[in-house]
Amino acid sequence: MQYPDNIMKSKKNTVVFGNRGMDLENLLNLSNRYYEEKNIALIYKKPTPIGIVDVHYNPRGKVIDKAYFKAPSTLDYNGLYRGKYIEFEAKETKNKTSFPLANIHPHQIRHIRNVIMHGGIVFLVIQIQQIYLLDGQDFLDYIDANERKSIPYSYIQEKGHIIKERIDPPLDYLPLVDQIYFGGNV
Amino acid sequence: MQYPDNIMKSKKNTVVFGNRGMDLENLLNLSNRYYEEKNIALIYKKPTPIGIVDVHYNPRGKVIDKAYFKAPSTLDYNGLYRGKYIEFEAKETKNKTSFPLANIHPHQIRHIRNVIMHGGIVFLVIQIQQIYLLDGQDFLDYIDANERKSIPYSYIQEKGHIIKERIDPPLDYLPLVDQIYFGGNV
Repeated sequence: MQYPDNIMKSKKNTVVFGNRGMDLENLLNLSNRYYEEKNIALIYKKPTPIGIVDVHYNPRGKVIDKAYFKAPSTLDYNGLYRGKYIEFEAKETKNKTSFPLANIHPHQIRHIRNVIMHGGIVFLVIQIQQIYLLDGQDFLDYIDANERKSIPYSYIQEKGHIIKERIDPPLDYLPLVDQIYFGGNV
Repeated sequence: MQYPDNIMKSKKNTVVFGNRGMDLENLLNLSNRYYEEKNIALIYKKPTPIGIVDVHYNPRGKVIDKAYFKAPSTLDYNGLYRGKYIEFEAKETKNKTSFPLANIHPHQIRHIRNVIMHGGIVFLVIQIQQIYLLDGQDFLDYIDANERKSIPYSYIQEKGHIIKERIDPPLDYLPLVDQIYFGGNV
Protein backbone atom coordinates (compact mmCIF):
# COMPACT_ATOMS: atom_id res chain seq x y z
CA MET A 1 0.00 0.00 0.00
CA GLN A 2 1.32 3.41 -0.96
CA TYR A 3 0.33 6.93 -0.08
CA PRO A 4 -0.14 10.29 -1.81
CA ASP A 5 2.59 12.86 -1.92
CA ASN A 6 1.91 14.72 1.29
CA ILE A 7 1.75 11.64 3.47
CA MET A 8 4.91 10.17 1.98
CA LYS A 9 6.73 13.43 2.51
CA SER A 10 5.64 13.52 6.11
CA LYS A 11 6.81 9.98 6.78
CA LYS A 12 10.28 10.83 5.60
CA ASN A 13 10.59 13.85 7.78
CA THR A 14 9.05 13.50 11.20
CA VAL A 15 9.30 15.96 14.05
CA VAL A 16 11.96 14.47 16.27
CA PHE A 17 12.12 17.16 18.95
CA GLY A 18 9.11 16.43 21.11
CA ASN A 19 5.59 15.37 20.18
CA ARG A 20 6.41 11.73 19.80
CA GLY A 21 7.76 11.78 16.27
CA MET A 22 4.54 13.03 14.70
CA ASP A 23 4.70 14.66 11.29
CA LEU A 24 3.78 18.29 10.68
CA GLU A 25 0.45 17.53 9.03
CA ASN A 26 -0.69 15.37 11.93
CA LEU A 27 0.40 17.96 14.48
CA LEU A 28 -1.63 20.61 12.66
CA ASN A 29 -4.66 18.37 12.23
CA LEU A 30 -4.65 17.53 15.94
CA SER A 31 -4.23 21.20 16.81
CA ASN A 32 -7.11 22.20 14.54
CA ARG A 33 -9.32 19.53 16.08
CA TYR A 34 -8.42 20.90 19.53
CA TYR A 35 -9.26 24.45 18.40
CA GLU A 36 -12.59 23.27 17.01
CA GLU A 37 -13.54 21.27 20.12
CA LYS A 38 -12.70 24.21 22.37
CA ASN A 39 -14.69 26.59 20.11
CA ILE A 40 -11.57 28.60 19.37
CA ALA A 41 -11.44 28.36 15.58
CA LEU A 42 -12.70 26.40 12.58
CA ILE A 43 -9.71 25.46 10.46
CA TYR A 44 -9.54 22.44 8.15
CA LYS A 45 -7.11 20.82 5.78
CA LYS A 46 -8.59 20.91 2.33
CA PRO A 47 -8.89 17.58 0.59
CA THR A 48 -6.19 17.09 -2.05
CA PRO A 49 -7.84 17.91 -5.38
CA ILE A 50 -8.16 14.86 -7.61
CA GLY A 51 -9.48 14.22 -11.07
CA ILE A 52 -11.75 11.19 -11.19
CA VAL A 53 -11.48 9.04 -14.29
CA ASP A 54 -13.66 6.08 -13.42
CA VAL A 55 -15.95 4.80 -10.66
CA HIS A 56 -18.06 1.73 -10.08
CA TYR A 57 -20.93 0.98 -7.71
CA ASN A 58 -21.00 -1.63 -4.99
CA PRO A 59 -23.62 -2.24 -2.26
CA ARG A 60 -21.93 0.21 0.11
CA GLY A 61 -21.76 3.04 -2.42
CA LYS A 62 -19.52 4.37 -5.15
CA VAL A 63 -15.87 3.30 -5.42
CA ILE A 64 -13.29 5.22 -7.42
CA ASP A 65 -11.35 2.94 -9.76
CA LYS A 66 -9.07 5.49 -11.34
CA ALA A 67 -8.10 9.04 -10.48
CA TYR A 68 -5.06 11.32 -10.44
CA PHE A 69 -3.75 14.11 -8.21
CA LYS A 70 -4.13 17.69 -9.39
CA ALA A 71 -1.74 20.53 -8.55
CA PRO A 72 -3.25 22.72 -5.81
CA SER A 73 -3.89 26.38 -6.68
CA THR A 74 -4.73 27.42 -3.12
CA LEU A 75 -3.10 26.58 0.23
CA ASP A 76 -3.55 23.43 2.32
CA TYR A 77 -5.51 24.80 5.27
CA ASN A 78 -8.21 27.39 5.51
CA GLY A 79 -10.90 28.49 7.89
CA LEU A 80 -12.34 31.02 10.25
CA TYR A 81 -10.81 32.59 13.35
CA ARG A 82 -12.27 35.51 15.31
CA GLY A 83 -14.48 36.40 12.36
CA LYS A 84 -11.52 36.56 9.96
CA TYR A 85 -10.55 34.39 7.03
CA ILE A 86 -7.33 32.46 7.62
CA GLU A 87 -5.33 30.35 5.17
CA PHE A 88 -1.95 28.69 5.34
CA GLU A 89 0.35 26.13 3.82
CA ALA A 90 2.48 23.71 5.85
CA LYS A 91 5.82 22.56 4.48
CA GLU A 92 8.70 20.55 5.83
CA THR A 93 12.26 20.47 4.61
CA LYS A 94 15.16 18.26 5.65
CA ASN A 95 17.43 21.01 4.40
CA LYS A 96 19.02 22.84 7.34
CA THR A 97 20.23 26.03 5.65
CA SER A 98 17.39 27.06 3.31
CA PHE A 99 13.79 26.45 2.33
CA PRO A 100 13.50 25.43 -1.37
CA LEU A 101 10.93 27.56 -3.19
CA ALA A 102 10.05 24.61 -5.44
CA ASN A 103 7.87 23.63 -2.46
CA ILE A 104 5.39 26.41 -3.32
CA HIS A 105 3.63 26.37 -6.72
CA PRO A 106 3.43 29.62 -8.76
CA HIS A 107 -0.38 29.45 -8.50
CA GLN A 108 -0.07 29.35 -4.75
CA ILE A 109 2.18 32.42 -4.72
CA ARG A 110 -0.39 34.33 -6.76
CA HIS A 111 -3.05 33.09 -4.37
CA ILE A 112 -1.12 34.41 -1.35
CA ARG A 113 -1.08 37.87 -3.00
CA ASN A 114 -4.82 37.63 -3.59
CA VAL A 115 -5.65 36.65 -0.02
CA ILE A 116 -3.68 39.66 1.27
CA MET A 117 -5.41 41.93 -1.25
CA HIS A 118 -8.85 40.75 -0.01
CA GLY A 119 -7.96 41.29 3.65
CA GLY A 120 -7.41 37.69 4.74
CA ILE A 121 -4.79 36.28 7.08
CA VAL A 122 -2.24 34.16 5.20
CA PHE A 123 1.03 32.55 6.23
CA LEU A 124 3.31 29.57 5.84
CA VAL A 125 4.12 27.03 8.53
CA ILE A 126 7.67 25.95 7.72
CA GLN A 127 9.50 23.19 9.49
CA ILE A 128 13.19 23.92 9.11
CA GLN A 129 15.12 22.90 12.22
CA GLN A 130 12.22 24.32 14.22
CA ILE A 131 8.60 25.03 13.23
CA TYR A 132 8.05 28.64 12.15
CA LEU A 133 5.07 30.75 11.20
CA LEU A 134 6.16 33.04 8.34
CA ASP A 135 3.68 35.79 7.44
CA GLY A 136 2.58 35.74 3.79
CA GLN A 137 3.75 39.30 3.19
CA ASP A 138 7.21 38.51 4.61
CA PHE A 139 7.34 35.52 2.27
CA LEU A 140 6.37 37.69 -0.74
CA ASP A 141 8.83 40.42 0.26
CA TYR A 142 11.66 37.90 0.09
CA ILE A 143 10.77 36.33 -3.25
CA ASP A 144 10.02 39.72 -4.84
CA ALA A 145 13.42 41.09 -3.85
CA ASN A 146 15.53 38.01 -4.60
CA GLU A 147 16.25 35.77 -7.55
CA ARG A 148 17.26 32.78 -5.42
CA LYS A 149 15.44 29.47 -5.61
CA SER A 150 15.30 29.13 -1.85
CA ILE A 151 14.79 31.24 1.25
CA PRO A 152 17.83 31.18 3.57
CA TYR A 153 17.24 29.89 7.06
CA SER A 154 18.58 33.17 8.44
CA TYR A 155 15.65 35.05 6.83
CA ILE A 156 13.14 32.63 8.33
CA GLN A 157 14.85 32.99 11.72
CA GLU A 158 14.69 36.76 11.45
CA LYS A 159 11.13 37.20 10.13
CA GLY A 160 9.47 33.97 11.27
CA HIS A 161 7.91 33.20 14.64
CA ILE A 162 8.65 29.92 16.39
CA ILE A 163 5.45 27.99 17.07
CA LYS A 164 5.36 26.56 20.57
CA GLU A 165 4.94 22.82 20.87
CA ARG A 166 2.68 21.75 23.67
CA ILE A 167 0.80 18.69 24.75
CA ASP A 168 -2.59 20.05 23.74
CA PRO A 169 -2.71 21.50 21.16
CA PRO A 170 0.58 20.04 19.88
CA LEU A 171 1.28 23.12 17.72
CA ASP A 172 -0.25 26.16 19.36
CA TYR A 173 -0.06 28.63 16.47
CA LEU A 174 -3.12 30.79 17.19
CA PRO A 175 -1.46 32.89 19.95
CA LEU A 176 1.03 33.97 17.25
CA VAL A 177 -1.89 34.83 14.96
CA ASP A 178 -3.33 37.00 17.76
CA GLN A 179 0.01 38.74 18.13
CA ILE A 180 0.73 39.26 14.43
CA TYR A 181 -2.72 39.90 12.93
CA PHE A 182 -4.82 41.17 15.82
CA GLY A 183 -2.20 43.39 17.45
CA GLY A 184 -1.88 41.09 20.45
CA ASN A 185 -5.49 41.66 21.53
CA VAL A 186 -7.14 38.45 22.68
CA MET B 1 -17.79 6.42 -17.58
CA GLN B 2 -19.64 7.43 -14.46
CA TYR B 3 -19.46 10.40 -12.19
CA PRO B 4 -19.46 11.13 -8.45
CA ASP B 5 -22.62 12.03 -6.67
CA ASN B 6 -22.64 15.80 -7.08
CA ILE B 7 -22.05 15.72 -10.82
CA MET B 8 -24.70 13.07 -11.38
CA LYS B 9 -27.19 15.06 -9.38
CA SER B 10 -26.48 18.15 -11.46
CA LYS B 11 -26.95 16.31 -14.73
CA LYS B 12 -30.37 15.17 -13.68
CA ASN B 13 -31.53 18.62 -12.72
CA THR B 14 -30.31 21.40 -14.95
CA VAL B 15 -31.37 25.03 -14.81
CA VAL B 16 -33.87 25.33 -17.60
CA PHE B 17 -34.88 28.96 -17.15
CA GLY B 18 -32.03 30.86 -18.75
CA ASN B 19 -28.28 30.29 -18.68
CA ARG B 20 -28.28 27.67 -21.39
CA GLY B 21 -29.28 24.66 -19.32
CA MET B 22 -26.22 24.83 -17.06
CA ASP B 23 -26.38 23.10 -13.70
CA LEU B 24 -26.14 24.95 -10.40
CA GLU B 25 -22.58 23.88 -9.65
CA ASN B 26 -21.34 25.10 -13.02
CA LEU B 27 -23.16 28.41 -12.66
CA LEU B 28 -21.52 28.94 -9.27
CA ASN B 29 -18.08 27.89 -10.46
CA LEU B 30 -18.27 30.31 -13.40
CA SER B 31 -19.51 33.07 -11.10
CA ASN B 32 -16.68 32.45 -8.65
CA ARG B 33 -14.14 32.51 -11.46
CA TYR B 34 -15.60 35.84 -12.59
CA TYR B 35 -15.40 37.22 -9.04
CA GLU B 36 -11.76 36.10 -8.78
CA GLU B 37 -10.75 37.54 -12.16
CA LYS B 38 -12.38 40.88 -11.32
CA ASN B 39 -10.68 40.89 -7.89
CA ILE B 40 -14.05 40.89 -6.15
CA ALA B 41 -13.77 37.74 -4.03
CA LEU B 42 -11.86 34.48 -3.61
CA ILE B 43 -14.38 31.68 -3.33
CA TYR B 44 -13.72 28.05 -4.29
CA LYS B 45 -15.53 24.78 -4.35
CA LYS B 46 -13.77 22.40 -2.01
CA PRO B 47 -12.65 19.13 -3.51
CA THR B 48 -14.93 16.24 -2.53
CA PRO B 49 -13.16 14.47 0.33
CA ILE B 50 -12.02 10.98 -0.61
CA GLY B 51 -10.25 8.19 1.20
CA ILE B 52 -7.42 6.73 -0.85
CA VAL B 53 -6.94 2.98 -0.59
CA ASP B 54 -4.29 2.31 -3.22
CA VAL B 55 -2.07 4.13 -5.72
CA HIS B 56 0.55 3.16 -8.26
CA TYR B 57 3.26 5.15 -10.04
CA ASN B 58 3.59 5.68 -13.76
CA PRO B 59 6.02 7.96 -15.67
CA ARG B 60 3.63 10.93 -15.43
CA GLY B 61 3.11 10.63 -11.68
CA LYS B 62 0.95 8.85 -9.16
CA VAL B 63 -2.36 7.28 -10.17
CA ILE B 64 -5.07 6.36 -7.68
CA ASP B 65 -6.24 2.79 -8.15
CA LYS B 66 -8.84 2.64 -5.42
CA ALA B 67 -10.60 5.26 -3.32
CA TYR B 68 -14.02 6.03 -1.89
CA PHE B 69 -16.09 9.15 -1.26
CA LYS B 70 -16.33 10.44 2.30
CA ALA B 71 -19.32 12.30 3.76
CA PRO B 72 -18.55 16.04 3.92
CA SER B 73 -18.55 17.67 7.37
CA THR B 74 -18.30 21.23 6.06
CA LEU B 75 -20.05 23.02 3.18
CA ASP B 76 -19.18 22.90 -0.52
CA TYR B 77 -17.84 26.40 -1.08
CA ASN B 78 -15.74 28.65 1.08
CA GLY B 79 -13.57 31.69 0.75
CA LEU B 80 -12.91 35.32 1.41
CA TYR B 81 -15.01 38.37 0.58
CA ARG B 82 -14.37 41.92 1.80
CA GLY B 83 -12.08 40.56 4.53
CA LYS B 84 -14.76 38.18 5.84
CA TYR B 85 -15.00 34.42 5.85
CA ILE B 86 -17.81 33.12 3.66
CA GLU B 87 -19.10 29.56 3.31
CA PHE B 88 -22.09 28.04 1.59
CA GLU B 89 -23.68 24.90 0.29
CA ALA B 90 -25.48 24.63 -3.05
CA LYS B 91 -28.37 22.22 -3.45
CA GLU B 92 -30.92 21.53 -6.13
CA THR B 93 -34.26 19.81 -5.78
CA LYS B 94 -36.75 18.76 -8.43
CA ASN B 95 -39.37 18.95 -5.73
CA LYS B 96 -41.57 22.02 -6.24
CA THR B 97 -43.20 22.33 -2.83
CA SER B 98 -40.45 21.67 -0.31
CA PHE B 99 -36.69 21.26 0.16
CA PRO B 100 -35.87 17.81 1.65
CA LEU B 101 -33.60 18.14 4.68
CA ALA B 102 -31.94 14.82 3.83
CA ASN B 103 -29.89 17.01 1.46
CA ILE B 104 -27.95 18.46 4.41
CA HIS B 105 -25.89 16.13 6.65
CA PRO B 106 -26.14 16.49 10.46
CA HIS B 107 -22.40 17.34 10.52
CA GLN B 108 -23.07 20.15 8.13
CA ILE B 109 -25.87 21.53 10.29
CA ARG B 110 -23.53 21.58 13.30
CA HIS B 111 -20.93 23.25 11.10
CA ILE B 112 -23.37 26.01 10.09
CA ARG B 113 -23.94 26.74 13.81
CA ASN B 114 -20.19 26.88 14.35
CA VAL B 115 -19.54 29.26 11.47
CA ILE B 116 -22.17 31.66 12.84
CA MET B 117 -20.67 31.37 16.34
CA HIS B 118 -17.24 32.33 14.98
CA GLY B 119 -18.56 35.34 13.07
CA GLY B 120 -18.47 33.96 9.53
CA ILE B 121 -21.00 34.43 6.74
CA VAL B 122 -22.87 31.22 5.99
CA PHE B 123 -25.84 30.43 3.78
CA LEU B 124 -27.45 27.91 1.46
CA VAL B 125 -28.00 28.35 -2.26
CA ILE B 126 -31.18 26.38 -2.95
CA GLN B 127 -32.58 25.78 -6.37
CA ILE B 128 -36.29 25.19 -5.94
CA GLN B 129 -38.27 26.66 -8.81
CA GLN B 130 -35.92 29.65 -8.65
CA ILE B 131 -32.44 29.98 -7.15
CA TYR B 132 -32.52 31.35 -3.60
CA LEU B 133 -29.94 32.44 -1.07
CA LEU B 134 -31.16 31.34 2.37
CA ASP B 135 -29.20 32.74 5.32
CA GLY B 136 -27.74 30.09 7.63
CA GLN B 137 -29.55 31.49 10.67
CA ASP B 138 -32.90 31.44 8.84
CA PHE B 139 -32.20 27.82 7.93
CA LEU B 140 -31.39 26.93 11.57
CA ASP B 141 -34.43 28.84 12.84
CA TYR B 142 -36.67 26.66 10.71
CA ILE B 143 -35.18 23.29 11.62
CA ASP B 144 -34.95 24.20 15.32
CA ALA B 145 -38.65 25.11 15.43
CA ASN B 146 -40.03 22.30 13.30
CA GLU B 147 -39.99 18.51 13.28
CA ARG B 148 -40.58 18.23 9.53
CA LYS B 149 -38.12 16.49 7.24
CA SER B 150 -38.29 19.25 4.66
CA ILE B 151 -38.52 23.03 4.46
CA PRO B 152 -41.70 24.21 2.71
CA TYR B 153 -41.22 26.30 -0.38
CA SER B 154 -43.32 29.05 1.21
CA TYR B 155 -40.67 29.47 3.96
CA ILE B 156 -37.88 29.72 1.38
CA GLN B 157 -39.95 32.25 -0.59
CA GLU B 158 -40.52 34.30 2.57
CA LYS B 159 -36.99 34.21 4.04
CA GLY B 160 -34.86 33.55 0.98
CA HIS B 161 -33.51 36.04 -1.54
CA ILE B 162 -33.75 35.33 -5.26
CA ILE B 163 -30.32 35.35 -6.89
CA LYS B 164 -30.30 37.27 -10.14
CA GLU B 165 -29.19 35.37 -13.22
CA ARG B 166 -27.05 37.39 -15.56
CA ILE B 167 -24.69 36.81 -18.44
CA ASP B 168 -21.56 37.48 -16.43
CA PRO B 169 -21.47 36.35 -13.70
CA PRO B 170 -24.27 33.85 -14.37
CA LEU B 171 -25.34 33.82 -10.69
CA ASP B 172 -24.61 37.21 -9.17
CA TYR B 173 -25.01 36.35 -5.47
CA LEU B 174 -22.53 38.80 -3.92
CA PRO B 175 -24.83 41.87 -4.15
CA LEU B 176 -27.21 39.90 -1.88
CA VAL B 177 -24.30 39.19 0.48
CA ASP B 178 -23.60 42.94 0.60
CA GLN B 179 -27.23 43.60 1.41
CA ILE B 180 -27.70 40.85 4.02
CA TYR B 181 -24.31 40.75 5.77
CA PHE B 182 -22.79 44.18 5.19
CA GLY B 183 -25.94 46.24 5.66
CA GLY B 184 -26.07 47.15 2.00
CA ASN B 185 -22.78 49.07 2.13
CA VAL B 186 -20.61 48.42 -0.91
